[in-house]
Amino acid sequence: MDTQTPGLPTLTNVLTARRLGLDTQHEAMAFVRADSPVCRSEGFSAHSRVQLTNGSKSIIATLYQTSTDLVSDQEIGLSEAAWRLLGLADGCQIYISHPAPLESLKTVRGKVFGQRLDPAGTLAIITDIVAGRYSDIHLSSFVTACSALPLDLAETIALTRAMVETGSKMTWDRTPIADKHCVGGLPGNRTTPIVVAICASLGLTIPKTSSRAITSPAGTADTMEVVTDVDLDLESMRRVVDQEGGCFVWGGGMHFSPADDALVRIERALDLDSEGALVASVLSKKIAAGATHIVIDIPVGPTAKVRSQAAAISLQSLLEKVAEEFGLKVLSLVTDGTQPVGRGIGPALEARDILDVLRNDPDAPADLADRACLIAGALLELVGKAGSGAGKAMALEVLRSGAAYTKFEAICRAQGGFREPALAEHSRPILAPAPGQVTCIDSRRLARVAKLAGAPGDKTAGLDLHVRLGDRVKGGQPLYTLYTETAGELAYAIDYVMANPDIIELTKP
Amino acid sequence: MDTQTPGLPTLTNVLTARRLGLDTQHEAMAFVRADSPVCRSEGFSAHSRVQLTNGSKSIIATLYQTSTDLVSDQEIGLSEAAWRLLGLADGCQIYISHPAPLESLKTVRGKVFGQRLDPAGTLAIITDIVAGRYSDIHLSSFVTACSALPLDLAETIALTRAMVETGSKMTWDRTPIADKHCVGGLPGNRTTPIVVAICASLGLTIPKTSSRAITSPAGTADTMEVVTDVDLDLESMRRVVDQEGGCFVWGGGMHFSPADDALVRIERALDLDSEGALVASVLSKKIAAGATHIVIDIPVGPTAKVRSQAAAISLQSLLEKVAEEFGLKVLSLVTDGTQPVGRGIGPALEARDILDVLRNDPDAPADLADRACLIAGALLELVGKAGSGAGKAMALEVLRSGAAYTKFEAICRAQGGFREPALAEHSRPILAPAPGQVTCIDSRRLARVAKLAGAPGDKTAGLDLHVRLGDRVKGGQPLYTLYTETAGELAYAIDYVMANPDIIELTKP
Repeated sequence: MDTQTPGLPTLTNVLTARRLGLDTQHEAMAFVRADSPVCRSEGFSAHSRVQLTNGSKSIIATLYQTSTDLVSDQEIGLSEAAWRLLGLADGCQIYISHPAPLESLKTVRGKVFGQRLDPAGTLAIITDIVAGRYSDIHLSSFVTACSALPLDLAETIALTRAMVETGSKMTWDRTPIADKHCVGGLPGNRTTPIVVAICASLGLTIPKTSSRAITSPAGTADTMEVVTDVDLDLESMRRVVDQEGGCFVWGGGMHFSPADDALVRIERALDLDSEGALVASVLSKKIAAGATHIVIDIPVGPTAKVRSQAAAISLQSLLEKVAEEFGLKVLSLVTDGTQPVGRGIGPALEARDILDVLRNDPDAPADLADRACLIAGALLELVGKAGSGAGKAMALEVLRSGAAYTKFEAICRAQGGFREPALAEHSRPILAPAPGQVTCIDSRRLARVAKLAGAPGDKTAGLDLHVRLGDRVKGGQPLYTLYTETAGELAYAIDYVMANPDIIELTKP
Repeated sequence: MDTQTPGLPTLTNVLTARRLGLDTQHEAMAFVRADSPVCRSEGFSAHSRVQLTNGSKSIIATLYQTSTDLVSDQEIGLSEAAWRLLGLADGCQIYISHPAPLESLKTVRGKVFGQRLDPAGTLAIITDIVAGRYSDIHLSSFVTACSALPLDLAETIALTRAMVETGSKMTWDRTPIADKHCVGGLPGNRTTPIVVAICASLGLTIPKTSSRAITSPAGTADTMEVVTDVDLDLESMRRVVDQEGGCFVWGGGMHFSPADDALVRIERALDLDSEGALVASVLSKKIAAGATHIVIDIPVGPTAKVRSQAAAISLQSLLEKVAEEFGLKVLSLVTDGTQPVGRGIGPALEARDILDVLRNDPDAPADLADRACLIAGALLELVGKAGSGAGKAMALEVLRSGAAYTKFEAICRAQGGFREPALAEHSRPILAPAPGQVTCIDSRRLARVAKLAGAPGDKTAGLDLHVRLGDRVKGGQPLYTLYTETAGELAYAIDYVMANPDIIELTKP
């Protein structure tokens, strides 16, 4: 007799697993025949939440019913997420039951009705989220409640701690461990690899993990994948850092603060982000990675994540208070977020910008070099490597000397080798229709153009931006250049550009 | 060129519809190959929200990607909900595009951040919900915000109006139009058919629509389907009401306040219900059906929807204020909700109870007759048919005289014929293990037993409850009897009962 569903006979509740090759991201989905004996006997209906068990592994999935031969009446079809979480092979026997009630939903309801989240309740919620027990409906309710009735300092600390506790944690046998983060990416704001190279060349330990793009044309991991391998496991990452002092690897495989991925997906769908959730998201990943000293870049601008100075200052304050609770030294920089950084938008084009900066190429984008040195300098000062006010000059010095580039190449070789970025086959400049002054650059639509061109899937696709705010341009002068891997995609991106002539706004001089 | 997605070439975005026979309830789902040209060119990823267009019909669906031959790379597989909403036939060409941004989500965000909902914003939200443009994430956020920051009177009125405006509306050429509603069903609380028969036999117009069970062992429509046809269209319903003064038909096909179904599903998943949303839910359906005088039964008990007298009184007050705004006369009765009503739980068993009451059978459950007369009496007083305090006696009189039964049969014949309920083939009494006094009856678990026995799918399945709170029983005396259509289901329900011996709590005398 099964302890979770006392009294229920188990044999009628077993179906054979069938892999449907269905990509649903994080969502565990199960498909059974409407006339399956399990549905009849258990009273499962469409959209039921069900518990699926394979040996010692158990998950909660959403059940759908089908009347076609997608599955037989002895089979249960599963999405890739469910398949992975259950560790299945074709033909495995799956035991299906009613899930135990989610006790932690009571805490969510309490929050909705105005109670404060306590540490134990918060940990229970986050544990259930990480185990995949929350549906989108539950996740959205939690995220919304944390925005409608904002988290206070104690709740933010509890949430941060719960997110750390429910994932992997890395420890280091030395200190300080440096790290950096940017809140809400501007297209092209790819300072990370440069900051890592500068800091590591000066002897700092900076084991940097980065994400792939979710909705943007490139994440730092996508960009660095152009020049080296980024999909390292924990041991390989530790080896690289022990050897070179720094790394730039993909964080997805590290399982740091896994609740964050689930929450970010919902926040994005709702376009809601609460300060408390943002602070917990940022700090939990850093704490889990073992960081002790962190510089946080907060770009402020109309199309950035943080849109006002007041919001940036409030965020700074909460970041610092929560960090203090965990013994972290955090310095946050409020920076200009009114336009993209550098020239390239798209993995290979951004990688080229990074290399140009590191190689001191005369055409290197000065704004990218400047931002990278600002952040690296702040980090050098924070860990006490540079005196107050002397960090940026120290960063600039190792950049100019070529020491940062040498370190960059060494890290790449330690991660699996260094490759020069390739160039896209097709390109087309987009010209100014008339003379004017650049008064606005819509970062969001520019990112969309780069995605339509094929980024980040097509590594060399994207665009190069040739103008910056305030520039005066002649009629017919290129504003930006599209790059694509196929002629079809080029036509496609151009179509969008033609329909959106105001992505870069020109005002008559 | 398409106006919704300016500049995008349309030909690459057309796929052939394929019906997957997938029951997802209200959720529109689309399945395409990950290597489909549409995914590549449009940048759709798993879990994207996409707009699907078939001729003049357009919906928003959630896109999933598959790597198997579920669909070919020229096909798009669709759930039944999507198929129905788009009015498809196999082979139809579907145009796929990025949906226009949901402007009404800004109003939801405003509510989350503490702004009040205004009528226009509320109407926009509800219009998008009815059109299927909200994902579960969006719906859950709206529902949660309305609980975390409760709707005030003006917001409740706006929500009610929006829910009425976005569905069908029925008008009648006479007045008053009587109706009744019960907030949060107790198992077996099947007063509606009796109330309709009593009121119609006294000349009232009472065009009653009812729902089928969603999570319970029987809805009024399931129960009435045992004795007559309930799936009538609007014209047939009007004909029955014109002829007999009343009806008991399934409301699902009427499309009154369709937003309600979407919201109720989310509230149920979250076990959240806000007073404002509940009032809008109840009143919007009644206003759409053209009711002018409504009696609302509010059972209060530990396993009922409303759990305290204070909550019931607050709900009463809001119901009356909102009703007044729409010119409705509403009377709400706070009733005992501590145990099931009548004896049967399950469609045919409840139908038998109803017939026993209407036929004045000496074994008829007195509590069901009493509740029905209470509600019918209140309705008779509300419309002015009976003097103050004289309604219940008037109701009892037509019940005792047989006039109510005559009317009941006449309505059934007008709806398509009258049938006697059948009896289940298998039954088993559940006996008191020892003598004692009944001190608690768990309505929720009792409902679960009836569902495990097969209700409401198996019409004759369910159970008969033989005891009521306060009864003293001997050891071995039957507490309730299970009924099932197959021996397997009987064994199955018994298994659950054996594992849950405290569904009916006996205290030693």
